[in-house]
Amino acid sequence: MVYLTRVEHFNAAHKLYNESWSEEKNIEVFGKCANPNWHGHNYELFVTIKGEPHPETGFVFNAKTLGDLIKEVIVEQVDHRNLNMDVPFMKGKFTSAENFAIAIWNELKPHIEKEGALLHYIKLQETPRIYVEYYG
Amino acid sequence: MVYLTRVEHFNAAHKLYNESWSEEKNIEVFGKCANPNWHGHNYELFVTIKGEPHPETGFVFNAKTLGDLIKEVIVEQVDHRNLNMDVPFMKGKFTSAENFAIAIWNELKPHIEKEGALLHYIKLQETPRIYVEYYG
Amino acid sequence: MVYLTRVEHFNAAHKLYNESWSEEKNIEVFGKCANPNWHGHNYELFVTIKGEPHPETGFVFNAKTLGDLIKEVIVEQVDHRNLNMDVPFMKGKFTSAENFAIAIWNELKPHIEKEGALLHYIKLQETPRIYVEYYG
Amino acid sequence: MVYLTRVEHFNAAHKLYNESWSEEKNIEVFGKCANPNWHGHNYELFVTIKGEPHPETGFVFNAKTLGDLIKEVIVEQVDHRNLNMDVPFMKGKFTSAENFAIAIWNELKPHIEKEGALLHYIKLQETPRIYVEYYG
Amino acid sequence: MVYLTRVEHFNAAHKLYNESWSEEKNIEVFGKCANPNWHGHNYELFVTIKGEPHPETGFVFNAKTLGDLIKEVIVEQVDHRNLNMDVPFMKGKFTSAENFAIAIWNELKPHIEKEGALLHYIKLQETPRIYVEYYG
Amino acid sequence: MVYLTRVEHFNAAHKLYNESWSEEKNIEVFGKCANPNWHGHNYELFVTIKGEPHPETGFVFNAKTLGDLIKEVIVEQVDHRNLNMDVPFMKGKFTSAENFAIAIWNELKPHIEKEGALLHYIKLQETPRIYVEYYG
Repeated sequence: MVYLTRVEHFNAAHKLYNESWSEEKNIEVFGKCANPNWHGHNYELFVTIKGEPHPETGFVFNAKTLGDLIKEVIVEQVDHRNLNMDVPFMKGKFTSAENFAIAIWNELKPHIEKEGALLHYIKLQETPRIYVEYYG
Repeated sequence: MVYLTRVEHFNAAHKLYNESWSEEKNIEVFGKCANPNWHGHNYELFVTIKGEPHPETGFVFNAKTLGDLIKEVIVEQVDHRNLNMDVPFMKGKFTSAENFAIAIWNELKPHIEKEGALLHYIKLQETPRIYVEYYG
Repeated sequence: MVYLTRVEHFNAAHKLYNESWSEEKNIEVFGKCANPNWHGHNYELFVTIKGEPHPETGFVFNAKTLGDLIKEVIVEQVDHRNLNMDVPFMKGKFTSAENFAIAIWNELKPHIEKEGALLHYIKLQETPRIYVEYYG
Repeated sequence: MVYLTRVEHFNAAHKLYNESWSEEKNIEVFGKCANPNWHGHNYELFVTIKGEPHPETGFVFNAKTLGDLIKEVIVEQVDHRNLNMDVPFMKGKFTSAENFAIAIWNELKPHIEKEGALLHYIKLQETPRIYVEYYG
Repeated sequence: MVYLTRVEHFNAAHKLYNESWSEEKNIEVFGKCANPNWHGHNYELFVTIKGEPHPETGFVFNAKTLGDLIKEVIVEQVDHRNLNMDVPFMKGKFTSAENFAIAIWNELKPHIEKEGALLHYIKLQETPRIYVEYYG
Repeated sequence: MVYLTRVEHFNAAHKLYNESWSEEKNIEVFGKCANPNWHGHNYELFVTIKGEPHPETGFVFNAKTLGDLIKEVIVEQVDHRNLNMDVPFMKGKFTSAENFAIAIWNELKPHIEKEGALLHYIKLQETPRIYVEYYG
């Protein structure tokens, strides 16, 4: 089993805010991330496929195809968008890095399986000092 | 003359939008950056002071003081904020990286001169592939 | 299960030296790392928490709380210190990256569990080309 | 169990080409990577050893010895070489990152075991956006 | 005056070889870079434009236009190519990073001036430890 | 004129301490950097040579020769050393990054000129957030 990872990039705005809480509680829990006028990040998205290298190519999966698929399925929907307002697959969810990584996994998985490949891992880097990882 | 640089980090939302233009012209010129619901970045801010090392310390300037000053004067005003809506020193300006770097220079300069030091250079990294530089 | 990682930074001096060996044996085994007058590193410390996102926040753990906890429990004790001389939790230990990572794990674990969270992983980057990892 | 990783660097040329296919099929599958006159990369090779720290050194393995061994066994054979033409252990293989990582694992393993250590993991970074991982 | 930089990436093969010299002299001067079967690099290309921000956009130059132009004029010609064999604008030149940076400058300059902008600086990173810079 | 830069790495211990001051004043001015038992850094040293590419090689200077020269003249003297105690060319100087960069310049310059080349610039990165630059 070999693991192939492709990294893609996008920029987005979001805020962390629980509408069922008071403004005070939101600031107490989410701090500056609760700013009502939004903030944003340069996200780095790592997507890992696992499998055995194909005898005719040496590839677990075609890295260019993987990049195109991530761009089409994820980046097109989130790049230069507001995660809370503009992204259908985040509707009704808190836009924490954790929830966002799970949602990206759920979006990507059927597309990768349709290509006959196995999704192994998602890493989402939100800032140089914070990232989340998800294995399904 | 020696040059001392301190790097600080912040996250912010913004959009590039000229209100005197049509939506179409905004999208034509600014592309995805004109998204009405904002997008955002992890900014890296480089601030360079120049001078001769002081004979009693070997310092051109105290790097910790410089970091504290950048945090107090700039980061506190822009971190986890909306550059178009929340930042007094960007009011009425397009929030391009170029304009933002010039405005940061103008904010920082008097504070650095009050400490008896010379501001030499600002670098503002907006994405891993785009940055601007300003020497006043 | 989602994994949340926070990265913190510190600088420290240390040396690798076995007092029960001759100077020659120390140099043979530890090379330049045995320099009696110390050397030092910029360490990057990665701390990973695992869990399910909380339904009211979307957080596995609050990343700011995690950063504050790492700073209070670890960084305050090791930053700009001598690992062999100044750090109580390294007393009597060789200050290899391996031992240091295990000791950091043991220091952090009760504090993280007191917050109701699960410590999953420590990564300690000692130089750009050397790092160690520990899962308890 | 602690994991120690050493990172080494090399540059090489290669192409992805299946001689049993037509030129058209090669370009369809491998795209620009099939360029008959080669292309190349700066590779970063991560090698991870696992074990318990030795009580007399605090080391799982000597990181300098590990670096020397990677340089002698791998880097000397591949640095500034053509992976398809010049590297005996890649003879007759497609030089995909996947196959290359497996071949590096097979080259390194006996040398690391001869030193009484356990090879745990290979990571081979081919471009800033593509890497593969192998655990044997 | 503000400086705007865009970074683009490509991979290429090359060798350093003076055909008017003996094999021995080539190896003496160019070392492993003279390998007859080529080696290669992941190049990072930094292109800097200078000017005043335009009052209607805040831009010195549109960073997306700049990226598209670098990709069209340079990356399309050199990515996944052999610099000695496949690149018309390097014909008859030693493919040192120095010569390559000058040639990239000469290719880019008229295209950037046609857009009414001023090319200020080229940086070409050949390996993590070697780069060249050119100001025309 | 083209500029060629080579980056080399070393680790060292040091402290910032003015012996003619009280302990209190040292802590007030140098903060944690005055820790009597030292701290340390992973330093990155950038050395830039300027000149015209030689018509027979395309080189401003041989990058391997430059790396060897930096290693011989600087890295051998400072790597895994205590800058205050072990380094002859820092004797009697405060080991600030500023003073250290000037001293490195003065050490390197005659060796580079003996090779017929022009030293243009030194950059010394002390931490990921602090660096100094010197042009002589």
